[in-house]
Amino acid sequence: MEKIKIIRATALKEKPKDESALVFGKSFTDYMFTMEFSSAKGWHSPTIKPYAPLSIDPANLTLHYGQSLFEGMKAYRDAEGGVRLFRPADNFARMSIGAQRLAMVPLDEEMALAGLKALLEIEKDWIPRSPGTSLYIRPTMMAMDAFLGVHASDSYLFFIILSPVAAYYKEGLKPVKIYVEDEYVRAARGGIGYTKAAANYVASMLAGSQAEKRGYSQVLWLDAVERKYIEEVGAMNIFFVIGGKLVTPPLRGSILAGITRNSVIQLAKAKGLEVEERPISIDEVFEAAQSGAMSEAFGSGTAAVISPVGHFSWKGEEVAVNGGKMGKIAQDLYDSLTAIQYGRAADPFGWSIKL
Amino acid sequence: MEKIKIIRATALKEKPKDESALVFGKSFTDYMFTMEFSSAKGWHSPTIKPYAPLSIDPANLTLHYGQSLFEGMKAYRDAEGGVRLFRPADNFARMSIGAQRLAMVPLDEEMALAGLKALLEIEKDWIPRSPGTSLYIRPTMMAMDAFLGVHASDSYLFFIILSPVAAYYKEGLKPVKIYVEDEYVRAARGGIGYTKAAANYVASMLAGSQAEKRGYSQVLWLDAVERKYIEEVGAMNIFFVIGGKLVTPPLRGSILAGITRNSVIQLAKAKGLEVEERPISIDEVFEAAQSGAMSEAFGSGTAAVISPVGHFSWKGEEVAVNGGKMGKIAQDLYDSLTAIQYGRAADPFGWSIKL
Repeated sequence: MEKIKIIRATALKEKPKDESALVFGKSFTDYMFTMEFSSAKGWHSPTIKPYAPLSIDPANLTLHYGQSLFEGMKAYRDAEGGVRLFRPADNFARMSIGAQRLAMVPLDEEMALAGLKALLEIEKDWIPRSPGTSLYIRPTMMAMDAFLGVHASDSYLFFIILSPVAAYYKEGLKPVKIYVEDEYVRAARGGIGYTKAAANYVASMLAGSQAEKRGYSQVLWLDAVERKYIEEVGAMNIFFVIGGKLVTPPLRGSILAGITRNSVIQLAKAKGLEVEERPISIDEVFEAAQSGAMSEAFGSGTAAVISPVGHFSWKGEEVAVNGGKMGKIAQDLYDSLTAIQYGRAADPFGWSIKL
Repeated sequence: MEKIKIIRATALKEKPKDESALVFGKSFTDYMFTMEFSSAKGWHSPTIKPYAPLSIDPANLTLHYGQSLFEGMKAYRDAEGGVRLFRPADNFARMSIGAQRLAMVPLDEEMALAGLKALLEIEKDWIPRSPGTSLYIRPTMMAMDAFLGVHASDSYLFFIILSPVAAYYKEGLKPVKIYVEDEYVRAARGGIGYTKAAANYVASMLAGSQAEKRGYSQVLWLDAVERKYIEEVGAMNIFFVIGGKLVTPPLRGSILAGITRNSVIQLAKAKGLEVEERPISIDEVFEAAQSGAMSEAFGSGTAAVISPVGHFSWKGEEVAVNGGKMGKIAQDLYDSLTAIQYGRAADPFGWSIKL
């Protein structure tokens, strides 16, 4: 593997003093990792260098035709002051799968992981120490050809940037209100909905901002064909506890194969819960919530880990889950997952990687 | 309106000597037009400056969440050496409509048009003179916030770049072979398919490149729900002549409201043709082509204007339209439209704008 070149900064930024005031994705550390792809050389020139603007041609293919995708993960500081990652190889593997769908090139996953580790070695003092805080990691791959033909790019840039983030929950898990979208569609089967393409996020933005204005924290998407089957919530996968079983929509190409989703499923099974991956209609959600058969609903994702849902609103009708109160399973899964992430608990799954 | 600032280049590029060798979207002129949007100032700082790379933060919202869209149009040199645009105000109006769907801000269309005209005034020597050549115009709007929260950007950049292009048809119109896509989906109703979002193009790239490898020049998309109704062809709208009537899919949110499409409809009606905007199934296309009821099929778009289709292939079956030969209506519409674009014919529609 090509040796990583390191270009030192002449001056470093001041590290944040108030770790509770850190806003997700707003401030970044001193360095970034980059590597380049060309059809002649493959992935090459792995480099750690000062965080700085990219020089992008106005005809850059990402700007015009959207060939870019990203990943999201976190570095956690454990009780001994060590640095831990959570299933990072799965993130890079997912990026390669997504890149294939977007007619991009597979990532050099080994070089990406080596780059991430080397970057964290240099930037480890940026990982906050307060409970629940972390260093958010954003790997990104984008097309670099400067050409307006609608064709896949021949050249790509991969980079990783780091942003320290405050604890997601400052006063414990809190159920949110979710707006079930009945006008807009996020993704259809046969499309690119299962990738972390930039393109999927712009497609969801208007619905998200309209739901926010109506007082809901996120949108629940329904399928594009029948407009009745549950897909995913904003930037999270969704789970329901119905009749004591954990139920979540199956992966059929239109929703993200969340790594937290997969961890929740494995963890729940290990705890003896029955897990069903199957289509769930919005009618079933409303009926089960109203009858009390549904005891819990929660989202799963990197940012919040677990986000309990208190209410769903659909076509003007609102239903409460468990009287709008958070459930035991959500709390337990949250506690168990975060304990593994921060190295406070044994990790029989081999998910937590100590640097 | 704010005065356009002009920053002169210290050296100019050499203009292309062989106008037949110009590749679409590969070389650009000396200058670009830019203007910026901030919530405090609105659209401001219209500037013409040397074509140069943009300085883009690695956390730029376009790269991560895809908030960008573009337009495509052309400047034509008329017989007197004058410069003509074709319905440019419609392009900028469409950009504003698309921007709304992508949770971006409406364009200052007046300033954009003034900027385009001023840019062309400076760059008019770049407009090629050979028959069928033109100067391709690419207006683009992109998010500029450097923030990883999944929220609409507060700041935007609008720019126009120019690329001289060779004649699309060097030896007359030539029918193409089209692959009817049965696996992938481009856009669903309720989504962003009607916009010129960068996001729509990445979603279509894999299918396009697979079709090319199979020997087809473009993909014909079917609807996302029933997978049977005709949507659009690659980067074009599609028309059929069935029983002497011109038939094209209606605008229902998943296909682009092409300006060439609209021009074809108006022009055909003015020529006394009956025009139907209605759902057309792929079964109808195959049956009508086989029975001979379909005498022509062609795509419409800025690049080719009219692109006749000789064959469709769907699920392993191939059908020829009019024996694979080009039809009279396609040729006539092409001749009439290009005559208006180049100022060779009277323009009762007011489409051709002389600078």
